[in-house]
Amino acid sequence: MNIVKSVKIEVILESIQVERFIEMLEEAGAHGYTLFGNISGKGQNGMLDHNCRAKIFANSYLFTICSEEVAQNILPQIALFLEDCSGSCFTSEVNHLKL
Amino acid sequence: MNIVKSVKIEVILESIQVERFIEMLEEAGAHGYTLFGNISGKGQNGMLDHNCRAKIFANSYLFTICSEEVAQNILPQIALFLEDCSGSCFTSEVNHLKL
Amino acid sequence: MNIVKSVKIEVILESIQVERFIEMLEEAGAHGYTLFGNISGKGQNGMLDHNCRAKIFANSYLFTICSEEVAQNILPQIALFLEDCSGSCFTSEVNHLKL
Repeated sequence: MNIVKSVKIEVILESIQVERFIEMLEEAGAHGYTLFGNISGKGQNGMLDHNCRAKIFANSYLFTICSEEVAQNILPQIALFLEDCSGSCFTSEVNHLKL
Repeated sequence: MNIVKSVKIEVILESIQVERFIEMLEEAGAHGYTLFGNISGKGQNGMLDHNCRAKIFANSYLFTICSEEVAQNILPQIALFLEDCSGSCFTSEVNHLKL
Repeated sequence: MNIVKSVKIEVILESIQVERFIEMLEEAGAHGYTLFGNISGKGQNGMLDHNCRAKIFANSYLFTICSEEVAQNILPQIALFLEDCSGSCFTSEVNHLKL
């Protein structure tokens, strides 16, 4: 069992932006992600209902685990991406269990 | 790109309590939240199935990102809230990407 | 209000493995967990759609909060478990609000 210090990058964004966001993420060096597609919340977007049928109004939440180096590469690109469409991003330290 | 040390407050509670909880959260100074409405789990409540139809038995998970000051204001109120109904709360440090 | 340093253990694994995983978790000393059953993502498994009907192809995400001691007991067992089936595990420090 091997434990590696890693960075968890969490992002909330409009569901309609997810596909384009993941493309950017992978080009920037992320090797995977976990996506929660049907959330609700309140932020810059106002109230969003998770039962909302119109995908254009829905929000998604995703996270990716990566190295500190990859995070330094990805974060400015996430900042640029989210400037153009509403969303939120935060990071934290995690210990990744390498198998 | 600007990074601000923030607090992530995570809460698991009965879905039937979510509306009242969010009201309390916003009055206490939280500026947004992300809600996952259809989870399952085991805790003080016993087993909960995420396919459970009766909303009264369902659990929800939500988190909010706030400043250390707002967290100090919110946490005692969350403790009071959760004393009256079952639930769980934990916090962690995150780096919030300010756009 | 009492705050206790704890460990959050997060796991992504195939939905078909969840039941067996939770059994192992509880035998190893975890007192609860929160389960998100319908996620999508990309990792060792390739692309998974959260609308995938076949449960055998679906992924789940779960977390548990426990003491450092329990985490030291659980993590090697998670490593063994995930060696046999695809999945991912990471941990972080959280402050658990004891009610």
